[in-house]
Amino acid sequence: MVFPEPEEKGPIPPYDHEDLIANRIRTRTQTHFASMPPLPEGTKRPDDMIFLLGGLPNHGFFPVTELTADIPTSPFAFDKKIKAVSHCESKEDGIDLKEALQYGSTEGLKALRTFTKDFIQRVINPAATAWDTALTTGGADGVGKCFDVLVNPGDSVLFEEFTFNPLLNICREKGGVPVPIKLPKVLAKDTLGQMEYADVLENMLENWEQLYPSKTKPKALYTIPNGHNPLGIAQTLEHKKKILALAEKYNFFIIEDEPYGYLNFQSADEEPNYNLTNDEFIDALHPSFLKLDTTGRVCRVETFSKIFAPGCRLGFVVAHPKLVEYIVSSSNIYTRAPSGITQAVVYSTIQNLGGLEGWIHWISLVRNEYLRRKNAMVKALAESAAGKKGYLIPLDPACGMFVACSVTVPEGRKVKEYMDKFIVQCLLNGVVVVPGGNMAVDPVYSQDRANFVRIAISYADSVELLAKAGERMSDAAVKATEE
Amino acid sequence: MVFPEPEEKGPIPPYDHEDLIANRIRTRTQTHFASMPPLPEGTKRPDDMIFLLGGLPNHGFFPVTELTADIPTSPFAFDKKIKAVSHCESKEDGIDLKEALQYGSTEGLKALRTFTKDFIQRVINPAATAWDTALTTGGADGVGKCFDVLVNPGDSVLFEEFTFNPLLNICREKGGVPVPIKLPKVLAKDTLGQMEYADVLENMLENWEQLYPSKTKPKALYTIPNGHNPLGIAQTLEHKKKILALAEKYNFFIIEDEPYGYLNFQSADEEPNYNLTNDEFIDALHPSFLKLDTTGRVCRVETFSKIFAPGCRLGFVVAHPKLVEYIVSSSNIYTRAPSGITQAVVYSTIQNLGGLEGWIHWISLVRNEYLRRKNAMVKALAESAAGKKGYLIPLDPACGMFVACSVTVPEGRKVKEYMDKFIVQCLLNGVVVVPGGNMAVDPVYSQDRANFVRIAISYADSVELLAKAGERMSDAAVKATEE
Repeated sequence: MVFPEPEEKGPIPPYDHEDLIANRIRTRTQTHFASMPPLPEGTKRPDDMIFLLGGLPNHGFFPVTELTADIPTSPFAFDKKIKAVSHCESKEDGIDLKEALQYGSTEGLKALRTFTKDFIQRVINPAATAWDTALTTGGADGVGKCFDVLVNPGDSVLFEEFTFNPLLNICREKGGVPVPIKLPKVLAKDTLGQMEYADVLENMLENWEQLYPSKTKPKALYTIPNGHNPLGIAQTLEHKKKILALAEKYNFFIIEDEPYGYLNFQSADEEPNYNLTNDEFIDALHPSFLKLDTTGRVCRVETFSKIFAPGCRLGFVVAHPKLVEYIVSSSNIYTRAPSGITQAVVYSTIQNLGGLEGWIHWISLVRNEYLRRKNAMVKALAESAAGKKGYLIPLDPACGMFVACSVTVPEGRKVKEYMDKFIVQCLLNGVVVVPGGNMAVDPVYSQDRANFVRIAISYADSVELLAKAGERMSDAAVKATEE
Repeated sequence: MVFPEPEEKGPIPPYDHEDLIANRIRTRTQTHFASMPPLPEGTKRPDDMIFLLGGLPNHGFFPVTELTADIPTSPFAFDKKIKAVSHCESKEDGIDLKEALQYGSTEGLKALRTFTKDFIQRVINPAATAWDTALTTGGADGVGKCFDVLVNPGDSVLFEEFTFNPLLNICREKGGVPVPIKLPKVLAKDTLGQMEYADVLENMLENWEQLYPSKTKPKALYTIPNGHNPLGIAQTLEHKKKILALAEKYNFFIIEDEPYGYLNFQSADEEPNYNLTNDEFIDALHPSFLKLDTTGRVCRVETFSKIFAPGCRLGFVVAHPKLVEYIVSSSNIYTRAPSGITQAVVYSTIQNLGGLEGWIHWISLVRNEYLRRKNAMVKALAESAAGKKGYLIPLDPACGMFVACSVTVPEGRKVKEYMDKFIVQCLLNGVVVVPGGNMAVDPVYSQDRANFVRIAISYADSVELLAKAGERMSDAAVKATEE
């Protein structure tokens, strides 16, 4: 975008990881048309300039002059409302609607971007001194732009073997070669809920040439460290330290995707707590890689999809200012700015929920509701007939909107064949869940470990419906095993 | 996107131009995770399925329960308002806010997409029997996805030599090689306002191997046929027929970019007409290539930026259903759906302005205001001192928000050097316009024809300010020429 004028920023500090940046960034030229010949020395533009430069319509052309959002006072409180109004009036620190309806800077409207920085400072408190944010059109867009910035054609990219695999599409589009990391212990009965693969990864990296003779050394690791999708589990701080040490030793980048990290559960027996203070909420969060990284080797990808609404198509990235600058160069080419209307609605909603602290409190209320749902789902499965017989073993998740459930494959049966039978029986019983194998980077590679399902607890209208779904799954497992 | 379920569509009719589609589309795999094993014959899913499949939050999690837009009754009528409300309630043919806040289908929410089809049928009435639309995140996104679908690395892409050149970035990103078409007559004094390059293009194509020995035959033409940016002029129907005949003979695709086509002016002396009927408005529009193309060789790219507001980041494409399907596959990878909040606001605003006919009337009112501005700008320049002396010759535009103005370069002066002098003098006089050379595909190739400026009439607060800008430009031209 060539208009409006980009925000004034200070000089960008030196970046240690230029060697990881893709060639397309180097060869990228950004044609624009707003450059002007220099003025003669000693002259300057007058103060009353008339701008006839860019094709910005005057706001009098816009068919919307005010936007009002009705806001519930807490999740599911449909009848208690406050009003959040976006006016067309100049505000020093806000978003006025004129501005939101106009062409806006690619990295996002200043007030909302400032909010994202305040939020990250408060909630994550990154270890690096230099970091910045830029808005995106959602989490997938943020991850996709990381691939755009990092991946040369042929570059290997590490993924946890089960992952949010629609992102493989954009990785491959950029020429990336996804390489799955085996998650050997994840589904073992004695280590439920652990996310430990540092030793597996170390072995891969040490023996890369032997193991992957035709593949380049990995350029990046894509990870969902907290509230993993589909597994729901979180990496410990110790594990994250090991992964970052490997990234430093073997020189790869870490893309930390965090759609669910704020929907965290403190322990398996935690109950919803409506008196949780914001400080308590923040202290209990599983830490971000940004808490450890000091050199700018990590990009954190956030989204408003899970804690505001998916229809926003709004998210942001947090990384070294230089990496953010590269990501914005991708936005300039592929998406431009996210919708200004959406930015205005999201910003004014957050402000009317109480700004930074009010928004954190809202998230903690959203978390409570997910906790209630998670407890109900895990309990329904554990206490079901199939749960008691060991046919279904729910993995108590650390965060998020998914409960993974291990499916015990009877002796002598093949995983894929049995899982298909179980899934068909679930469908006939009236419940749809995702077979674990559907979320593998490489379904053949992971087929022996695909004996689980992912259960989304987010969409059902009630906890009772989740309990009912648990019964249906239990019945399906009993039938699939015993019939 | 794997959820929600894609809209049911009929079978796609055969497409004659598969040979023009890029290889990346052929090799594109779209990983998703919602596939299920088939049910045994004779069985079916029960009616009360519980969906625990996708990570869709229940709408009770959304912090917005209602959105209200205040709408002026006509452009610049800030004080006369009607209210457009987006509720969370099921409507057969509308957009309810629950739906807008949720993950939505990539091609756009059904009601708004249906509106785009009704609009195109009414206003354009395409000649082809098979065509479809898909929403985009704006005009540049629509054009970029055409390049994504069509351009193999190394493919030549034709551009009018002066054009909206920020689109060169995405063309080059896809490996396209922009080739400018000379616009020889455009700025000649005796053919002001004509957009004739069919004979130039024919000569290029006939002698391609000799003229461009290192370049492949062109894969596509990017054109802004009506309300050209930066030149403001429109191709005649006859010219469009010739261009389409060349596209058929030499087998290339036409990307018709139309941000300004509805802001059309019927003649140089037309005055704003507030009694224009919708039929009269439509009949006076410069025709689209879609009025001529019957085989699906044209993609029309529209945007809501210029007639609603740029901050929507919303537009749509119109093309053969197969091409639209390919474009949606690019959206799945690069952007997903446009913001649902924005779709809801735009849709409910249009509905409250009177639906299809009300929206066309709104556009005609927007057009009137541009006509008033255009007339003022052209008059100010023509009647200025520099206009009378022939130093500045405004090109009366056929559509849009730009007035191009030819700058007469004194005998013996170089175009670039004189233009820089004139532009600097404009800046010192307090007016910023775009030097024509800034909008060239290849500034060196076009330097001798870059003796013009592009004046945006859209942003200034008043017609009086435009007249003042004209005086400042006149004074700059007189100084640059005579001093």
